[in-house]
Amino acid sequence: MGHRLPLIAQLREACPGDWVQDLIAGTVTAILLVPQGMAYALLAGLPPETGLYASIVPPLVYALLGTSRALAVGPVAVAALMVANALGHYAGGDEARWLTGALILAAETGLLLLLLGALRMGALVSFISHPVLSGFTSGAALLIITSQLRHLTGIDLARGDAFDTVHAAVAHIGEIHWPTAAFAATAIVLLLLARGPLVRALSALGVDQQRALTVSRTAPLAVVAMATAAAAALHASGVQGLSIVGAIPAGLPRPDLAFLSAPGWIELAPSAALIALVGYVESVSVAKVLAARRRQKIDANRELVALGAGNLAASVAGAMPVAGGFSRSMVNFDAGARTQLAGIVTAVLVGLVALLFTGWFHYLPQAVLAAIIVVAVARLIDLDGARRIWRYDRADGLALAATFVAVLTLGIEIGLVIGIGLSLALYLWCTSQPHMAVVGRVPGTEHFRNIKRHTVETDPRVLAIRIDENLYFANAGQVEDYIARHLASAPQARYLLLVMAAVNYIDASGLEMLEHLEEDLTHAGVTLHLSEVKGPVQDRLKQTHLYARIADRIHLTTDRAVRSLTQETEPT
Amino acid sequence: MGHRLPLIAQLREACPGDWVQDLIAGTVTAILLVPQGMAYALLAGLPPETGLYASIVPPLVYALLGTSRALAVGPVAVAALMVANALGHYAGGDEARWLTGALILAAETGLLLLLLGALRMGALVSFISHPVLSGFTSGAALLIITSQLRHLTGIDLARGDAFDTVHAAVAHIGEIHWPTAAFAATAIVLLLLARGPLVRALSALGVDQQRALTVSRTAPLAVVAMATAAAAALHASGVQGLSIVGAIPAGLPRPDLAFLSAPGWIELAPSAALIALVGYVESVSVAKVLAARRRQKIDANRELVALGAGNLAASVAGAMPVAGGFSRSMVNFDAGARTQLAGIVTAVLVGLVALLFTGWFHYLPQAVLAAIIVVAVARLIDLDGARRIWRYDRADGLALAATFVAVLTLGIEIGLVIGIGLSLALYLWCTSQPHMAVVGRVPGTEHFRNIKRHTVETDPRVLAIRIDENLYFANAGQVEDYIARHLASAPQARYLLLVMAAVNYIDASGLEMLEHLEEDLTHAGVTLHLSEVKGPVQDRLKQTHLYARIADRIHLTTDRAVRSLTQETEPT
Repeated sequence: MGHRLPLIAQLREACPGDWVQDLIAGTVTAILLVPQGMAYALLAGLPPETGLYASIVPPLVYALLGTSRALAVGPVAVAALMVANALGHYAGGDEARWLTGALILAAETGLLLLLLGALRMGALVSFISHPVLSGFTSGAALLIITSQLRHLTGIDLARGDAFDTVHAAVAHIGEIHWPTAAFAATAIVLLLLARGPLVRALSALGVDQQRALTVSRTAPLAVVAMATAAAAALHASGVQGLSIVGAIPAGLPRPDLAFLSAPGWIELAPSAALIALVGYVESVSVAKVLAARRRQKIDANRELVALGAGNLAASVAGAMPVAGGFSRSMVNFDAGARTQLAGIVTAVLVGLVALLFTGWFHYLPQAVLAAIIVVAVARLIDLDGARRIWRYDRADGLALAATFVAVLTLGIEIGLVIGIGLSLALYLWCTSQPHMAVVGRVPGTEHFRNIKRHTVETDPRVLAIRIDENLYFANAGQVEDYIARHLASAPQARYLLLVMAAVNYIDASGLEMLEHLEEDLTHAGVTLHLSEVKGPVQDRLKQTHLYARIADRIHLTTDRAVRSLTQETEPT
Repeated sequence: MGHRLPLIAQLREACPGDWVQDLIAGTVTAILLVPQGMAYALLAGLPPETGLYASIVPPLVYALLGTSRALAVGPVAVAALMVANALGHYAGGDEARWLTGALILAAETGLLLLLLGALRMGALVSFISHPVLSGFTSGAALLIITSQLRHLTGIDLARGDAFDTVHAAVAHIGEIHWPTAAFAATAIVLLLLARGPLVRALSALGVDQQRALTVSRTAPLAVVAMATAAAAALHASGVQGLSIVGAIPAGLPRPDLAFLSAPGWIELAPSAALIALVGYVESVSVAKVLAARRRQKIDANRELVALGAGNLAASVAGAMPVAGGFSRSMVNFDAGARTQLAGIVTAVLVGLVALLFTGWFHYLPQAVLAAIIVVAVARLIDLDGARRIWRYDRADGLALAATFVAVLTLGIEIGLVIGIGLSLALYLWCTSQPHMAVVGRVPGTEHFRNIKRHTVETDPRVLAIRIDENLYFANAGQVEDYIARHLASAPQARYLLLVMAAVNYIDASGLEMLEHLEEDLTHAGVTLHLSEVKGPVQDRLKQTHLYARIADRIHLTTDRAVRSLTQETEPT
């Protein structure tokens, strides 16, 4: 179990040199987080300081309570888009209401995660399948990119769905504001170059790999610094129309609980539930990946509590909903984070920026923040994964594609709900069309296999059918029909043997089907036998009328069943 | 396949004396159907002749197309209540609109069933589990009984939910109309006596069982005749306030397609979909039961077509939605129906009544029709079944109880939808908490069983775990956790053997879990082996990266796997 506060346990287990690693990792992450935090606040439609505040208090809370050692908590792109989407309906053009709404969302997200944690319902989130999450993330990334078109081009585009936005951008291409577009294009090119090419170039020049990567990670802050300087110079020379971040109030977040009495808690609750779900799933996914790399474990229910507390803290600190970000956590891990001390370092450094250096970002062009967003989320679009999933499983591929399309056309919330519903429906549909096989003995063994796949021995008096699915309401009728069809074409059969090795559950409808089957077979002069009934299934069958009738016809193995049935009927 | 028209095939196969049986059965059913048809029209809020019309043309159409030989098609109680419920919202107090709405519902029900039949989607209806259907039917029966309180007592009660109605009836108990209540009470007592006690009394007097049953079945018509005579006498003697059926237009239904251009098709479509679902499930359930008794088969997709055509015919013939009634079909079967010739006889006889004898029902008290409804539907409340289901499976019991309560409190449509949704969710929840077991060899055999249930041999180097569920998104995380927990407490394990005999499906999320597991285990110095992988599962695995890595570690049987792994590591 470790200490009640996981951080204490982490620090006790840490090696002497680990704190240096944590210091470096925390600094690298902070350098990435300052521009990203402001950018994601912009994406959520909130003032930039909100993103900074969300990068100070929530990571501190998570550092104390979380079981992942490298998860970097703060504002994340997809949740930011979901916040923007929810607040668009809630607040319209009223800026004060946007901020209030963001606090309500953070509080509700936190409460919901805490509730799920208290109920130990961490498993609930497994109802988002990987394909649905992949389709959702890719769709959301595209939505995010189109939402940034107005910042990238300076064209005055209304908020709308992805297609409307692209269409409007093309229609109004003449209104492009060239200085804005130039900043955006330059920033995108520099950020892309800073990834692969810069690292390769530095390595070629003899810089060691680790140092090259660290330089690469400071690129966003370097781009921000250069762009801000350039924009300030342009401003001095009289260029007009470039949207800049403007005045950011200096100082640390001050607790303000006025939002508690604001209206809209019920209206925003469904959005908060989806933000909680998506944020938690993203956080736990990356936390699991990172834990596995160092043979550590995370505790899903404690993660619920830690993220819940982090979001509650965000609401009190005047910030926006937070989660563990995928790319940021990877950066933290790769930079050497060993414990959540790294998270504390990050929070303290971002706090210093908020306290002392916000004035430096006055002339930062919004186009550059948009460029940072676009480059970050473009990596979320996972075409390779989609192709692999489609090849492996058509149903999963369909769920992925439908989620992706629904997110783009119907919106991020409805898209997610449709994806989850569809993946559940497809799973049920698959299990309602169960695989079944007539089986026979692999010669000379005790094993029975599908007669269509293996060379096996059968006895015309015994029809042995293996049911490869749970027997429940959605497939009981199909199973009954399959058995009836095969009995009709096996006129010599005197025994029907159902091999139950793959039946893990029989519900009341399945039981009723077996009872009717047994009665019908008795009338037709065929006796029903079962083999390899699993322990839990047999326990429940024991209380039924069916069991009373066929208890002596339930065999431990198919081999013994077939032996006794064929001996019994031999004329010797 | 038989003839394209199943009736022709039935008649060709019939024995010479069968048509006499059919004539008798058709007559008995018609005697039951005339009062029931009018009663169910009353329940649906429609004029009594609608119920007669629904008992003429639709059974004729079903007789031609249906694959069940004994199913008696016509107005049924639960569907009638659903019609009343849908039309209450649609038509309010406008009588003409009630009739138009009923025709639209019948047409939409018919079209939907035909569509499902054309798509061969008969299996879709299996998504209503037996417990949900049982809870739904019991709840609907109670709703029906309370809806008849105003006819039984003469108290002027507004339509409302079951509790409101009972509450209002108790509050206004002083307004009871005693002649009405006397008719109702007498009719209920006579109808109940006519069932068991009358048959037993006649048998005791030496009447043979079959004849006694036939007499018992004419009881509703006898009660109707006596009550009508009594009401006419009371009317002549000046008693006021007894609700009677009144004038029923004589004649056969005349096709009228004016409803085609009426508004409300979209508004009524969801209700029609639920009526189609419930009507089809009820029809197919009883048809299956009756077919099995004579070793015959029904064809679910042809049933969809036959019932769809029957409902379309009902809409054209000015009637209400129809289905195969449970009790009426049992009567038809017990009275000896061999082919659908019996259905034709019934239709012709009801047609004669509509043509010539409707005037005879003028003074029939509505209280008596209500009594017929109450006695008929009271049998639908299945407490024994509910108790049995609860004992066998808590999840199914919960679905049943929730459906029952939801139908009573939230209404018949929402109740059904909640029941279906809940039963699906509960099934997924069960499969998301899979049963898993560490297994060992049953000494001296090739079989491996749960170490907790059997005395088995294990080798500390091999951790063999059987997964008793499909590996899919909702349980992949749980399975991973279970494996991690057991590996952690088996420090000597060098091989993890997953026994896949009960895994019928691995979706993309399950595959991803296995891939991560394999990587993690490799780092930890444990190798992953699989055994008893089913054919269809293996076929799909073959295209994956995982298969490329572990193809030589997939064993046909657990026995061979354990043998090779334990030999391999022995120091010899």
